[in-house]
Amino acid sequence: MNQISDLFAEAERGNTVDKADYEAELSELRMELLNLQYDLNRRDFSVVLLIVGDDLPGVVASLRVLHEWMDGRYIQNHVMFDTPGEKFEEQPLVKRYWRRLPPDGSIGLFLGAWPYLLLGTAFDEDWSDEELDRGLDDVSRFEKLLVDDGTLLLKYWLHLPKKKLKNRVAAAERNPQKYWDYAQYDWKFLKRYDDRFDLVERLMGRTNTPSTPWRIIESADPRYRNLALGNHIASALQKRLYSDSAQTVASNAVSKIAQSDESAMDDIDLGASVDEDTYRKKLPKLQARLNRLSHRAHKAGVHCVFLFEGVDAAGKGGAIRRLASALPVQHTRVIPIAAPSETELARHYLWRFWTRLPDSGKTVIFDRSWYGRVLVERVEELAQVHEWSRAYEEINEFEASLHDSNFVVCKFWLQIDTDTQLSRFEARAQTPYKKYKLTDEDYRNRKKWAQHQAAAEEMIALTSTSHAPWTLVAANDKRHARLQVLSTVVERLDAQLRILDAADSKQHRKGKKKRSG
Amino acid sequence: MNQISDLFAEAERGNTVDKADYEAELSELRMELLNLQYDLNRRDFSVVLLIVGDDLPGVVASLRVLHEWMDGRYIQNHVMFDTPGEKFEEQPLVKRYWRRLPPDGSIGLFLGAWPYLLLGTAFDEDWSDEELDRGLDDVSRFEKLLVDDGTLLLKYWLHLPKKKLKNRVAAAERNPQKYWDYAQYDWKFLKRYDDRFDLVERLMGRTNTPSTPWRIIESADPRYRNLALGNHIASALQKRLYSDSAQTVASNAVSKIAQSDESAMDDIDLGASVDEDTYRKKLPKLQARLNRLSHRAHKAGVHCVFLFEGVDAAGKGGAIRRLASALPVQHTRVIPIAAPSETELARHYLWRFWTRLPDSGKTVIFDRSWYGRVLVERVEELAQVHEWSRAYEEINEFEASLHDSNFVVCKFWLQIDTDTQLSRFEARAQTPYKKYKLTDEDYRNRKKWAQHQAAAEEMIALTSTSHAPWTLVAANDKRHARLQVLSTVVERLDAQLRILDAADSKQHRKGKKKRSG
Repeated sequence: MNQISDLFAEAERGNTVDKADYEAELSELRMELLNLQYDLNRRDFSVVLLIVGDDLPGVVASLRVLHEWMDGRYIQNHVMFDTPGEKFEEQPLVKRYWRRLPPDGSIGLFLGAWPYLLLGTAFDEDWSDEELDRGLDDVSRFEKLLVDDGTLLLKYWLHLPKKKLKNRVAAAERNPQKYWDYAQYDWKFLKRYDDRFDLVERLMGRTNTPSTPWRIIESADPRYRNLALGNHIASALQKRLYSDSAQTVASNAVSKIAQSDESAMDDIDLGASVDEDTYRKKLPKLQARLNRLSHRAHKAGVHCVFLFEGVDAAGKGGAIRRLASALPVQHTRVIPIAAPSETELARHYLWRFWTRLPDSGKTVIFDRSWYGRVLVERVEELAQVHEWSRAYEEINEFEASLHDSNFVVCKFWLQIDTDTQLSRFEARAQTPYKKYKLTDEDYRNRKKWAQHQAAAEEMIALTSTSHAPWTLVAANDKRHARLQVLSTVVERLDAQLRILDAADSKQHRKGKKKRSG
Repeated sequence: MNQISDLFAEAERGNTVDKADYEAELSELRMELLNLQYDLNRRDFSVVLLIVGDDLPGVVASLRVLHEWMDGRYIQNHVMFDTPGEKFEEQPLVKRYWRRLPPDGSIGLFLGAWPYLLLGTAFDEDWSDEELDRGLDDVSRFEKLLVDDGTLLLKYWLHLPKKKLKNRVAAAERNPQKYWDYAQYDWKFLKRYDDRFDLVERLMGRTNTPSTPWRIIESADPRYRNLALGNHIASALQKRLYSDSAQTVASNAVSKIAQSDESAMDDIDLGASVDEDTYRKKLPKLQARLNRLSHRAHKAGVHCVFLFEGVDAAGKGGAIRRLASALPVQHTRVIPIAAPSETELARHYLWRFWTRLPDSGKTVIFDRSWYGRVLVERVEELAQVHEWSRAYEEINEFEASLHDSNFVVCKFWLQIDTDTQLSRFEARAQTPYKKYKLTDEDYRNRKKWAQHQAAAEEMIALTSTSHAPWTLVAANDKRHARLQVLSTVVERLDAQLRILDAADSKQHRKGKKKRSG
């Protein structure tokens, strides 16, 4: 008997609570929960409360009970027992949960959600071991990311022994008037209880870590279940609110930064330039080519994320305009990234990017991006060392998820030298309608040129991956930079479409073989 | 020749601007637009900029030009040339635009959007006159609502004479490399140019009002078009920012409030009560019945909006819990409505409700609602007289839209007397875990009991419509109130399902007749 089975066995003891004890304990528990909620409300972390289990009506009942006990203004419900419209190959599995993450100071109550989705889909679609492992990887990375960021993650599995579950469904069948809450549910879990248990054990085995533990709660007696759940939530909140455990987690998470002697920046030939005539000829050709490719990409459901980083006045805006104007406007969004809003600050720094990823067949261009975490936030000390040093790995994993879901990710670093920057600042100051682009901050940033460059070099060294490489663009000459951006996107899109075509024709040949076989 | 044709004729004059003039004028215009944007940013109204026309590449080009000229941080793009997934019978036509309304101080730039949708759908689906009129009604009500609320609505139609349009498409066919922006578009407009013109005239005739005028801009010469558009936007912003026209519009919009001698409140029998035994028997029966009905309703795609209003401690929360616990949790949302957030205050007061309407087959329960406008906001003078007095009609129209899209709307007013309220307040003060529900504000509100009641009476008199009647609930006895709420919802859902069944079987008979005929 392994550890997980032990946990389940413990939740089959037949615990009950009688009515008088229940009501006596409840009054105090409710008050405690409310007070904890109000204290939480003033703090800078959020609670993700995940409730799932084999006792689905119990799961639903627990939502109602928690709402009766607590202040509904600070709990957001996310009842997620449905299967998603899109496939995992099209969008990362965890995207839908990112959107729903609660802001700091509040509780996001998830029913079903990622464990339910994994179990359901793996079982229904008869996943291979590799597919299941990938799903479990995604989910455990997601949980780790939340916990590293300070989120209090509480995961409950409500357990009803198989026999009890059968009895209840039978009772509901005989008397649906009385037991209507057990009469209408989708009883997949019951029908294939044993077959499914293997999968539950694998899920638990993979996602039951010291920082993201599961609690299995005996669900047979509603009063026992309610109290066990409520008491556990209260004590976990208590511990987190009034102890320093978060800080401990955070400092443990400091990762080491690789030191590199080589600098990718040195390889950029800042003297590269393109003359006006060549530019006038090449630009419309590249744009026309890109336009055709992007229409094909849209039809093929290819989604693209293009991001631009670089010092002020590197020419990001101009390059983005030439790129965007060649893409179908109805499928393209340009998103300028400035300082995060209050809503954004109350969540993980990746939240505002996860929630703005393009749907299938669409393109999003980020004018500055998640790399702000390891650039400006690092240099200006807006993020703590353990936060930005952890970010390289988080970002690589984020981009790996995008790659796994067939996103085309192009990352452009536009490099100029400090003289070019100065002369562009001066030109802006001279052009009335460009003055607004120039602020005191720009001059302040210039003074930290070396720090900004060092941060950029480290970023490029640590986040250039095969699936999401950086393209370093020599941008002293704007024409050269714009053409390089356009031709890179053309190449990447073309390559992706070739891969899809090849996969299609392989499938097609397979189909033919089968039919002829 | 009617007025609309005149407007179009004026946009076929062959205006052009040469390059030197263009660049001379541009520098000043760009600066002016930027300055206007920054002034707008500090003001409490928003700009809805709608660009549509027969020159679709021109429409798209104008978005790009405006973005080059203005500060992209304060313009949100909504490129809406697609046809919606849902039908008008399922969701109100304007719902998708509500979601995208810009906050005060910024510009929402809509391409295509409602005129494009109306023209496209009316034409493709061969709408009857009635259908088209309904669509035009929805759209003109929506525009009026925005303008009444202080939004600056600017509507532009970019016009290219038929012959010129044909020439361009022909050129693009010959040389797609050079004219790629004209090569890829969906040329429905061109192919059925004449047939469609009737429809355009009807749209313009109906939506070209003094407060929501159309501007037709000649689009043949891009430089002329860009300047005409930019100059018009600048002058409209100028006028609105530095004149009092908004106030004039607003005061003209004050509507008269009907005076009524009869009071619906007097008819409520506050002595109505249900004994414990009857309640214990009836409650689970009603809940089981409702549960079955709501599963059928979900399958039939019926969407429900249930809202609860009443003085503090009237028992809304308890009634909502009994109602919600009988509904399938995965299709039901309870939304408590408190004071609006900053995001919500920066938009029309109906925005936070439009954006939370249930999808097909789902239910939303509002704990307090849009009626706050004519209740607390009126009594506490949070809304001006012309704002809340206009709201009765706006709300009736909003609910009419819901009714037209087959929503089941149940509105509950829970009435108690002042002694009952006081004793409930006292009971709350005695129960530790209910204390949080009681604030000084509750006692302050009690002092204005008469004003709150008068506002409620007027609200009920002016917003009880056949499609969305108020249900007045005697709530001194909580058991009575809860059963009345449940049985009302059961009745309304049952009635709606019967209507759908009847429509189905009618369709079925029709189908049979056709086949046998």
